[in-house]
Amino acid sequence: MIIVLKPNISKKDEVAVLKEIRKLGYKPHIMRGVERTVIGAIGDERTHGSLETLSAWTQVENVMPVQKRYKLVSREAHRGNSTINVRGNLIGGKKFQVMAGPCSVESEKQLLTTAHAVKAAGATILRGGAFKPRTSPYEFQGLGEKGLKMLAKARKETGLGIITELLSQDHADMVAEYTDIIQIGARNAQNFQLLIAAAKTGKPVMLKRGLSMKIEEWLLAGEYILANENANLMFCERGIRTFETYTRNTLDLSTIPIIKKESHCPIVIDPSQGAGRADLVVAMCKGAVAMGADALLIEVHPNPAEAWSDGAQQVTLEGFVKLMEELKPFITAAGRE
Amino acid sequence: MIIVLKPNISKKDEVAVLKEIRKLGYKPHIMRGVERTVIGAIGDERTHGSLETLSAWTQVENVMPVQKRYKLVSREAHRGNSTINVRGNLIGGKKFQVMAGPCSVESEKQLLTTAHAVKAAGATILRGGAFKPRTSPYEFQGLGEKGLKMLAKARKETGLGIITELLSQDHADMVAEYTDIIQIGARNAQNFQLLIAAAKTGKPVMLKRGLSMKIEEWLLAGEYILANENANLMFCERGIRTFETYTRNTLDLSTIPIIKKESHCPIVIDPSQGAGRADLVVAMCKGAVAMGADALLIEVHPNPAEAWSDGAQQVTLEGFVKLMEELKPFITAAGRE
Amino acid sequence: MIIVLKPNISKKDEVAVLKEIRKLGYKPHIMRGVERTVIGAIGDERTHGSLETLSAWTQVENVMPVQKRYKLVSREAHRGNSTINVRGNLIGGKKFQVMAGPCSVESEKQLLTTAHAVKAAGATILRGGAFKPRTSPYEFQGLGEKGLKMLAKARKETGLGIITELLSQDHADMVAEYTDIIQIGARNAQNFQLLIAAAKTGKPVMLKRGLSMKIEEWLLAGEYILANENANLMFCERGIRTFETYTRNTLDLSTIPIIKKESHCPIVIDPSQGAGRADLVVAMCKGAVAMGADALLIEVHPNPAEAWSDGAQQVTLEGFVKLMEELKPFITAAGRE
Amino acid sequence: MIIVLKPNISKKDEVAVLKEIRKLGYKPHIMRGVERTVIGAIGDERTHGSLETLSAWTQVENVMPVQKRYKLVSREAHRGNSTINVRGNLIGGKKFQVMAGPCSVESEKQLLTTAHAVKAAGATILRGGAFKPRTSPYEFQGLGEKGLKMLAKARKETGLGIITELLSQDHADMVAEYTDIIQIGARNAQNFQLLIAAAKTGKPVMLKRGLSMKIEEWLLAGEYILANENANLMFCERGIRTFETYTRNTLDLSTIPIIKKESHCPIVIDPSQGAGRADLVVAMCKGAVAMGADALLIEVHPNPAEAWSDGAQQVTLEGFVKLMEELKPFITAAGRE
Repeated sequence: MIIVLKPNISKKDEVAVLKEIRKLGYKPHIMRGVERTVIGAIGDERTHGSLETLSAWTQVENVMPVQKRYKLVSREAHRGNSTINVRGNLIGGKKFQVMAGPCSVESEKQLLTTAHAVKAAGATILRGGAFKPRTSPYEFQGLGEKGLKMLAKARKETGLGIITELLSQDHADMVAEYTDIIQIGARNAQNFQLLIAAAKTGKPVMLKRGLSMKIEEWLLAGEYILANENANLMFCERGIRTFETYTRNTLDLSTIPIIKKESHCPIVIDPSQGAGRADLVVAMCKGAVAMGADALLIEVHPNPAEAWSDGAQQVTLEGFVKLMEELKPFITAAGRE
Repeated sequence: MIIVLKPNISKKDEVAVLKEIRKLGYKPHIMRGVERTVIGAIGDERTHGSLETLSAWTQVENVMPVQKRYKLVSREAHRGNSTINVRGNLIGGKKFQVMAGPCSVESEKQLLTTAHAVKAAGATILRGGAFKPRTSPYEFQGLGEKGLKMLAKARKETGLGIITELLSQDHADMVAEYTDIIQIGARNAQNFQLLIAAAKTGKPVMLKRGLSMKIEEWLLAGEYILANENANLMFCERGIRTFETYTRNTLDLSTIPIIKKESHCPIVIDPSQGAGRADLVVAMCKGAVAMGADALLIEVHPNPAEAWSDGAQQVTLEGFVKLMEELKPFITAAGRE
Repeated sequence: MIIVLKPNISKKDEVAVLKEIRKLGYKPHIMRGVERTVIGAIGDERTHGSLETLSAWTQVENVMPVQKRYKLVSREAHRGNSTINVRGNLIGGKKFQVMAGPCSVESEKQLLTTAHAVKAAGATILRGGAFKPRTSPYEFQGLGEKGLKMLAKARKETGLGIITELLSQDHADMVAEYTDIIQIGARNAQNFQLLIAAAKTGKPVMLKRGLSMKIEEWLLAGEYILANENANLMFCERGIRTFETYTRNTLDLSTIPIIKKESHCPIVIDPSQGAGRADLVVAMCKGAVAMGADALLIEVHPNPAEAWSDGAQQVTLEGFVKLMEELKPFITAAGRE
Repeated sequence: MIIVLKPNISKKDEVAVLKEIRKLGYKPHIMRGVERTVIGAIGDERTHGSLETLSAWTQVENVMPVQKRYKLVSREAHRGNSTINVRGNLIGGKKFQVMAGPCSVESEKQLLTTAHAVKAAGATILRGGAFKPRTSPYEFQGLGEKGLKMLAKARKETGLGIITELLSQDHADMVAEYTDIIQIGARNAQNFQLLIAAAKTGKPVMLKRGLSMKIEEWLLAGEYILANENANLMFCERGIRTFETYTRNTLDLSTIPIIKKESHCPIVIDPSQGAGRADLVVAMCKGAVAMGADALLIEVHPNPAEAWSDGAQQVTLEGFVKLMEELKPFITAAGRE
């Protein structure tokens, strides 16, 4: 920690700060500058008490951490790239993966039609929501376990892996029984009890970035998964909330090189949520592939205009085939398969 | 719903839109403008299927709702101001209420000292976290039920009502057994399962605004409480996330007149979280009182520099006495007691 | 400056950093921590070359400034509160000031009617735009010098001081000839050439905060005024751009205690732009007064629904009389006149 | 325009709205819905007076425009893609263009070294700031005309086109004399007087997006160029301001498909400003190419650590050669040359 003192404070005020630093287990180191005195507090910031409370002292101008707060998810903890094996498909490996399927599971027919179509087009994992977090209590909340059973049936028929969202701690075991990857949605990205419950199922976890989550907070939320002894974590960028209203969210593709730099965990891009508009999805997929994403999560629906949720952002089956075709040269250019 | 068609589309494309509108249970009404044709879809937007999926159609330029999506929390549903009775203190009534106490319950001594002090200074409700949502898994997570028992003891000794945060559905009954008001924190403001669990305890619920929650989303999250048959809802503004880094959050005091206009539920202001700095709390409290807030939620600690969480934003016991004194003329000016 | 090195770098890489620090005129001071080495670079950050470029070096993790970058506007430069004399009315003194008038000057009749009405209600300064920055080139751009002449006439008739916006360097002398205070609008808050031109007229300058301007950037923009030898600067908060769409902007009232803490210059609040809705203006004015603002800038129009710009946020003449009446107890409570 | 009335208003209040609509030149069209009455106001929203002021009326709940406010920049105005010829290089055509050079022009040697290097690596246009907008008045403000002369010399030696920023209306003729493209920076993106002055020089204009500019506002600012009879406009995304602090700005790559959809003008991406960190620039360039950008604007410096401005985001000469090499497969994949 670096503690910047205010200019012209008394000797007594300075001594009090030094005493407090020592009390919290750090070794103080004084630097007298031109205008201000700066104290370096030497010690491990992750195991000692926090010095940020010093910023409440009147003689202190600023307190700045120098260590990163995340450990297990950090690139320093694991130099290579972690990979996650989902029914034989490696996420984070040389092969580029595509997860596709409807926003919500609506019926067996809708799901199976989509599953066969996305498999034929090259997807390896099927997405579909059985529990849906909806802004209004009057909107469709998902089919629940019935939807999970349909996902399991689709897997059996197609061999695709399954990813679906976990909304409630109470459903952790049930969802884990059916799915191959547990998705934590943006609204629950700092619902730490849910993160812990998901981690404890032992299933791979895909952690979406919260609507206004800083990179550091996202990495620390991921730390909750690894600290609960689940090594199979992947991050998923799905757009952040900004002032712009043209798109539903602002897809922050810079997260791809940033996550690759800071962490060993795979990064997945969700352009459907990011744009909220199917007509922008293709370009965003191309960008994600070129920038080094490990996988895409794409909403596909046989008839988007009649979808029970988020119709505006779902791609048609034909659109998906065309998209997969258009992505190929970029996957090759990115050195992926 | 208003559906704006693109310029120069074919008759056939227009007819398809009209057909879909009727299929979803609305009555279409066509207006031919100078450049664009606009269709009004007449019907209750809250009970019919959503027409937003039409925006995925190539002939459609824009789809705009005209109805408000919230019902039970709206001012239209209840013309008067709702009040909530907490151990004889009315929140939302003529008397201005102050909830105060430490960020986290740390020890019996810390809590009782604070409780007696805030009571003497005029607070009527004691706040204190027993379960703490922390950005990092390595930070103090709260004393749990032990903390709840301390809160109950403080209530017994002082007569103050209790407010504390609920973090997990699994703790809903336990927390409800001890507390008078259940607090839903900003990170869980759209954790709908937690909202439902809180509502079902029957205890009054204080719903904090999420870090990047729009007013409409906040009202709709509140709708989850009322729709689950709990009429005792109050909203709490605690600052939103913006680009500014001087303060931890940007306290949006305009929520006071807005909530009063849109809803009948009381509005509480939390300047401690809003500023993240004790030195700004006094001014923010004055603003909140003047603008018509029903209550304040203030973090007070006997020794903020040694607090186990969020020391920088907690006011000292002496600071709180002074604050309460300074607020008096503004409470009077606002026509409150 | 504090330079944080990456863990496990070579001795040679460390020496290179030390050499660069000395080259730029600072004295390096090494602190070896548990995981990282931190270097304090001692010297005046405002006069020496910037060390931030070091962050481009591969062995450097982070570079953090410790000094504040603003001097002349800072509270350290001038302990008391600066006041600005506008035709006998002190802004920043004990008397609370109200600036009111139409968004745009539209006609002599509209302006004089408003001027007499706001004067009668207690305003001391008349606002009115003669040059209007409009998002679209097809919108009304202001009456130009004709509007300035009308403002001068209104001043002559009522004795009110005048505030109007300067949009172009080329108009600096012309606008200064007519007005008592030059307003720099939000869109031009970092148009430094305009700031310099305004400063050089010698007239008092009111600097609005840019739509997404951090406090530090705002203070530094103000520094451009004082550094160009114009001591009569006041800041004006008018709402920042956030994700919220209910209001046009989010009025950040925390700027009042922050500007008072960081600077000696007066702070004015513009609730009309901040809310973009007349129905929220009254509450925001009360909050601003209670929190210690020095003045208000309020849009008032004889017939807002027919205003040539921003009708939605303008208060009627009757509304203004009522507002001034309602503010009185809060002005008294705030210890102002 | 669509005007939504409040529920249960009187006949008289409704008639008043209809009268006002007619007075402003629109033809009202009434739709009676389940809860609310909606009025369509038929007429050209761009030439008639604005109806938004109706939202100030107590009987009106909401006013929504249905027309787009921009004309000349819109895709509807010009179906094909506009191209801009800069010394024989077409921007917006099949050939992908790269503009590269230092943030600031510092010396003849620095500029010529960079110019030769970027030309050899494949760039066709040289960037370099002679007038620099700086947050603090104490930072380096650019070499001015001396810098422009150096740019002209570099053009003469290398044949590269020149792009440089215009900061002041008073310099428009001078800058136009030396440069091939006039850059309008983010801070001046709504400095409409500067936009008009730039347009009138007749030189191609590159308009950067403001820090918190909505797409619609950006397009409308571009409209100021075309409405002043300059057809050679290109847009440049350089990152927007969000809550994230890891990067200096959040580069919004979704602007590429959006600008292509809404406008016929070319779109340029500036990843240097967008990231503020050289180590993220390569990935962002790849994304921009893949998503269909027409050109890149990249900061390159012989020795970034000693740059006079923004060192942290400038790429070295070697880094630039490597970057250009890595981009090739993506340029091919995108169907460009």
